[in-house]
Parts: sequence; structure tokens; C-alpha cells
Amino acid sequence: MARKSSAVQSSASSVASVSGGDAPDLQALRRGERGALARAITLLESTRAGDRKRAEALLQGAMPHTGNSIRVAISGAPGVGKSTFIEAFGMYVAESGRRVAVLTVDPSSAFSGGSILGDKTRMPNLANHPRAFVRSSPAGEMLGGVARRTQEAILACEAANFDFIIVETVGVGQSEVLAASMTDVFLLLLSPAGGDELQGIKRGIMELADIVVVNKADGDMRAAAGVALAEIKNALNLMQARCAGWRAAAVLVSAREGRGLDEVARQVDAYRAVVEADGALQAKRRQQAEEWLWNEARQQLLARLQADDAVGEALQGVLQEVGEGGLPASMAAERLVAIFMREEEAAAV
Amino acid sequence: MARKSSAVQSSASSVASVSGGDAPDLQALRRGERGALARAITLLESTRAGDRKRAEALLQGAMPHTGNSIRVAISGAPGVGKSTFIEAFGMYVAESGRRVAVLTVDPSSAFSGGSILGDKTRMPNLANHPRAFVRSSPAGEMLGGVARRTQEAILACEAANFDFIIVETVGVGQSEVLAASMTDVFLLLLSPAGGDELQGIKRGIMELADIVVVNKADGDMRAAAGVALAEIKNALNLMQARCAGWRAAAVLVSAREGRGLDEVARQVDAYRAVVEADGALQAKRRQQAEEWLWNEARQQLLARLQADDAVGEALQGVLQEVGEGGLPASMAAERLVAIFMREEEAAAV
Repeated sequence: MARKSSAVQSSASSVASVSGGDAPDLQALRRGERGALARAITLLESTRAGDRKRAEALLQGAMPHTGNSIRVAISGAPGVGKSTFIEAFGMYVAESGRRVAVLTVDPSSAFSGGSILGDKTRMPNLANHPRAFVRSSPAGEMLGGVARRTQEAILACEAANFDFIIVETVGVGQSEVLAASMTDVFLLLLSPAGGDELQGIKRGIMELADIVVVNKADGDMRAAAGVALAEIKNALNLMQARCAGWRAAAVLVSAREGRGLDEVARQVDAYRAVVEADGALQAKRRQQAEEWLWNEARQQLLARLQADDAVGEALQGVLQEVGEGGLPASMAAERLVAIFMREEEAAAV
Repeated sequence: MARKSSAVQSSASSVASVSGGDAPDLQALRRGERGALARAITLLESTRAGDRKRAEALLQGAMPHTGNSIRVAISGAPGVGKSTFIEAFGMYVAESGRRVAVLTVDPSSAFSGGSILGDKTRMPNLANHPRAFVRSSPAGEMLGGVARRTQEAILACEAANFDFIIVETVGVGQSEVLAASMTDVFLLLLSPAGGDELQGIKRGIMELADIVVVNKADGDMRAAAGVALAEIKNALNLMQARCAGWRAAAVLVSAREGRGLDEVARQVDAYRAVVEADGALQAKRRQQAEEWLWNEARQQLLARLQADDAVGEALQGVLQEVGEGGLPASMAAERLVAIFMREEEAAAV
């Protein structure tokens, strides 16, 4: 069966031939050079024709050197002091001798087209620390493509010998579920400010949390933070443990004054020790990789369909019917898929 | 080319033959019977083999009767009083003689497996109103499948003569973008409580808002709500208008005391009048339908790949390589896609 040759096609065999030698930048990446890591992630995120093949060669070379970090999702609603916490916590971890990478996924940019998060200027100290790397990435396409390449950026950081990887997300909802799908441990940041809000968050996103950090335990908020911590511990006690051997912990922190950061790091390490001991970490990572495999397959199939000549010929007519409300999207999709799969003639008989 | 016959396959021609007669429940649906609408949405959401064909027959019969409602997304962080507002606002609209449907998308259920939102007991008065319909749906699969059927549920509500359709979402992030992708107007609910939070929200999700509602303008919060309204109006004035002729409005509301609801309804109608007059509404709906078409195509292609015999044979080996970290998900997906497209032999030569 003839298919239109396009940029999205790159068979396993052609990739294997490229990766026989070292892919561009792999050696610099392996030495942990931050410039090489930044270029590698740019390559992984690139949608330019031809770049994907180079990206995959790089990835394949990197794979044997991945998996050795702890992958930490950090989430929290706007206003809880997430940037301040991540900078302070990242500095603490980096100062303790580890190499810290911060990858930020910005879901809102799917609409605005630009990052609302700003860039490295959000975390100036951490971005300049010799053992740290800070990177902000847009979320990509609106539906399904969110953070598609962040999972690969994690692998690149690991190949560059970063052993503490933070995936930062914004908001409460789908982006958290995505961040959880590519990390080992989920750290939820709360502030003692919103009592109401706390109650709401407890019931949903709290279920994702392995470690809850109550930030802003300083100044006027100090007493309120203590109260919030007690409430959260109560709530966590009522919830089922997500994995055997680990019950979600709650830690009081003042990112501004640098207090509690050591305890957060201890909890992350304790979590890793527990889930590594009984094989739960490996099982979780295997399951995550499978989820990403299906997500990738879905994206690649659509790219092929969109590049198909016969689909292209039928597209205007189908779009018009859909646009006029004569055909639901699901049935229009079926028609295009049938054309892509060359089933039209058989169906017409 | 032979393909495994499976439940996901239903060609355009076979559907057309079913929809020649009236699909099950279409007449009861057209009469606006709530039971028929509930059953129709259950059918649309069903993943059972065979149900999809019936669902499409129903949809195709419904299509000529769709498009006549105003589709309103309502979003807001936990704690802003969303349920109370939607119940009060829905009652106001229903009492004014319109037929109101509330569809709730619950993204967090992707993880917990169950709804955190509860059911109709959240909005007891509205759920029992003869001109209202309230429905809570889980978000479906984790990646890409979110609210896939909500878009079709909107069409079913329209065929059942509901002319004011509310799509409720939770959280700040991806779910909002999805809700915006299937509605005409985006209503953001805020509470005057969190000053900090307000600042954060302003920069991201505020961009999506066509109408901002400051709730809880009552009791202790009354003064704070007035201040928040002024701040929001300032922020909105600094932002670019999303469509010609409409600048986002801000309205002060007490859902508890029932004040401001009339103004919200007026703003929704004013918005609709503006975007309908210059064709912007039709253009927006056409673009949305196209987005959903691609999302549907992606899902259907993956379902076919997963049902393919040759893919099934190779799957265990590929999953093992992925699970052991030897193969990135993107390249594993390429291998499976190549097998699905029967390109393996050609590639091996």
C-alpha cells in the first residue's frame, strides 16, 4: 500500500542506522553541559521536518543513561508561592550536592500562545546555580498534545546527570494528572490563606499528593499555617494510602525564610526509598511509559492521516459539512479514517 | 488491505443506512423529555461494543435540530461558590421561560475513578425544575479523551430543545481550555476572598473570560467584592478584546441572595447578539467543530491500532523494551504505527 512520504515517517530501521554513531550533542549532554541540555530539549520540542529524526537519534543514545533520578511533580494553585518555593527548595537540594533540573509545563499558553510564567527570571538564583537547570516549555497543541515532549525532556536531563528533576505545573486539574503521569512523587503546595479553597482542593487534587507542603508559614500567616497543617494531616489520615508502605506526609515550610526545606527533601528521599524497595517505582514507571506510548501512537497516526493525499482531497467537503452542522465530528472523523485506511471502495459496495 | 474487524469500525455508509429511519429515542428526545435526554447522553458516553453505532444514528437524526442554543462555559476555582451560583443562575434563567441544561465535566475523576462533584444533590432545586436538566459526567480517559462526549451531549441537549446550555468545569487549566473549545461564551466565576489568588488567575485564565462574575458580594465579603470588581475591571481594560465588538464584562453577584443574576443573563444575551451579528459565532463554531474532528480522528485511529492483530503480536516485546527503559515511548509508537500500516517488510529491506 502506497502512503504519502512525509516528515512524520521515520521507521525503526532508519533510526537505528543513525544511532550507530553518536548523535549530535550526546557527548556534551553526557558531560552535563547546560547549553547542550538546552539545545537537546529544543531539538526534542522541535516540530520542524527532519528534526524529529535527529531528536530520536539523540534520545536513543541517551536512553541507557536514564532512569537514575527522582522525578518530582510540584503543583499548586496560583498565589501559593510556587516560584519562591521551587527556587528555595531547588537551591537547598543543589547546595546539598545534587544536580537539580526544573521543567515547567505551562498549560495556559495553549490559549495565549505565550508563557504566562515568564522565564528564568522567576528563579534567578537557581537558574544561575552551577548544579541547576531551569526550563519553561509551552504545553503544545490544545488537545492531547499537552506536555508531550516534557516526558522526553526528563530523559534528556537524566542523561545529563541531573538526579533531582522537578516538573512544575500550574492550576488544579488536567495538568496535574499529566504531571503525575511522568513523575515518581507528587508534591502539592498549599498556602494557609484560603480556607475555603483548601477544603475544595482537599477533595480532588489532594488524592494525587504524596507530599503536601504548607507554604508561607511565616509572618502573619504563621499561626494559620499551623492550623492548616493540622487540618491537612486529618484529611490525609482519612484517605487511603496510594501505595503500600507510604502514607502522604504534610510539611510546614517558609520558602521565604528557608525553613522546612530540609524536611521536604527528607520526605522525598524517604518516599523514593520506600517505593524502590518493593519494586513499586519500577512498576509505576513501566505503566507510565505504556501510557505515553499510546499517546504518542495517537499523535503519530493523526499526523499521518493529515499528511495523506486522499484525505486531503476529501477534507474540504467534510469540513464544510461539519462546519454547517450537518455532520457530527465523530462521524466526520470516521469518514476520514476510512479514507485513510482505503476502505471507501469496500464500504461503497 | 485486510484489517481486523472490530467494534470501533463503522463506516459512513453503514451509519447512513441506520439513520434512514428514526433512531431509538429520537422522537422522545425531540419532545424534550428529560428521561430520553438522559438515556441519549448515556448512549453517547457508552464504550460498549455496538452502542456507538446506535449513538451515531441518534446523533445524525439530532443534527438538523442543533445549534440553536447559547453555549456557556462556567469555570472557577474550588471555593468560589460555583454550585450555588449555577443553581441560582440556572433557576433565574429557567424561571424566565428558557430551558436550561447543565453539563458538568469532572477532570479529577480521571484519577479517582469517581466523581468528586457529587450528583444532582448539588443543585436540588435546579435538578427538579421542569425546564432544567442537570448532568454530571466523568472526564473519560486521561490523555486526550477528556470530555470527548460532552461536545456531543451539547448537541443532544439542543435537539431536546434546551436553549441555554451551561458547561461547568473545575479548576484552572486544561479543563478550561477544553470547555472553551465547545462553547460560545466563557464565564469566569471569582470570589473576593483570595486577593493573591486573584492576581494569579488574572494573568492566565482571565484571558479566556468573556464575562467575569464576582460572587459572594454579600455579608462580610460585600466590601471586598466591590474592591475586587474594580480591580478586575482595570485588568480587563488592559487586556485585548478577544473578538471585535465585545470587551469582557465584569458583574457583581450574590448567588446566595439572588442579586446580579439578571445582569449576568443580560450580558450573556448581549454577547450572543454581538457575535451573531457579525458572523463571529458561526466562524467560532466552525473552527471548534474542526478541532473536535481532529481529536476524534486521533482517538479512532488509536482504537483501530490497538485492535489490530499484527500490532497485538508485537506489543508484548515493544512494551518490555519500553518498560526496561531501552526504547523511548515515541520510537516505540513509531514501530507499532509502522506495523499497523504494514510498512515493516518495506522498512526491513
